[in-house]
Amino acid sequence: MMLSSAPRGRPRDNRAHQAILTAATELVTELGYAATSIGAVAARAGVGKDTIYRRWSGKAELVYEAVFTETEATPAPDTGTLAGDLTALLEALIQEFTAPAAAAALPGLLADFAANPGLRARIRSEFLAPAKSGLVTVFERAVQRGETDPNVPVDLVLDTLAGAVFFHVGLVGEQPGPQLAAQLAAVAGRGIETR
Amino acid sequence: MMLSSAPRGRPRDNRAHQAILTAATELVTELGYAATSIGAVAARAGVGKDTIYRRWSGKAELVYEAVFTETEATPAPDTGTLAGDLTALLEALIQEFTAPAAAAALPGLLADFAANPGLRARIRSEFLAPAKSGLVTVFERAVQRGETDPNVPVDLVLDTLAGAVFFHVGLVGEQPGPQLAAQLAAVAGRGIETR
Repeated sequence: MMLSSAPRGRPRDNRAHQAILTAATELVTELGYAATSIGAVAARAGVGKDTIYRRWSGKAELVYEAVFTETEATPAPDTGTLAGDLTALLEALIQEFTAPAAAAALPGLLADFAANPGLRARIRSEFLAPAKSGLVTVFERAVQRGETDPNVPVDLVLDTLAGAVFFHVGLVGEQPGPQLAAQLAAVAGRGIETR
Repeated sequence: MMLSSAPRGRPRDNRAHQAILTAATELVTELGYAATSIGAVAARAGVGKDTIYRRWSGKAELVYEAVFTETEATPAPDTGTLAGDLTALLEALIQEFTAPAAAAALPGLLADFAANPGLRARIRSEFLAPAKSGLVTVFERAVQRGETDPNVPVDLVLDTLAGAVFFHVGLVGEQPGPQLAAQLAAVAGRGIETR
């Protein structure tokens, strides 16, 4: 297998880095988060455990990077309306949360993050930063279009959207219907009050 | 101690039942969810493990009942407005999620629920049922007042409110400010779009 033939003991080797992320993704999908160990990831990736610990603080941080790497890349949607942009952001979020590896990892991963003060302190400042910057861009455009006012509590809206998707899909385990993103965007964007 | 003097081996004994719930609440608060075991709860409550397993499927269900029992009792708020009722529901939710035992238990508890198909299947139908019935009552009154329309996706709104509080307070660990419930009620109720 390509993975086990990845070169050993070369920390800056990009192939080793990728092999570790791939092995973590595969093991979490096959065994679940709790049963995945750093030792098993190292063995499958063909590296030493020390190579993993030189790059990641532990299982939670490694699995987070392995299952959520794409997040960083996604550019902010620009559909021309706040409702459209929120729907696009939510569709991406639902896709991330429902990808097999992420779905298998998410509950245990969130529990480890919440239970570890060091990681917990980095959630807002680091792990949620890319998603927030996309949301900030979306709101800046919406303010320019007069769709919302400048003092929207962006962190709170981000927590609301991410929490809703986690709770609905990740925890309760609902199969996300085609309308879920639009419905959540409507709740957050237009609210449930009739005017 | 009263707890350890609770009578043994009498499944229907209400004092034993209460002693088990109290012991579970204390241990989760002292040790955290992961470090709390059925054996330790049984020892502190002065009952046998079999007494616990006769009543609860395992740690997750026991801890859930121990830290969230009050939920069932709460009547639906009736402040006269949807925003006011949502704020009241959210204040109760924030209080539940931030109570020491619940805060200590929540991440690990949710991970166990999500990872256990049997428990997961009961989340919507059983564990969320009291909260949903309160929300349904609130929406029925809001529809009568013309504040919202009859086809509000109640389950989705419930997941959104609960998910937002979990993510913001339970996961990210924000100290809930006095305005949090009203801000979340505004996001869900009036939305973030300006009309």
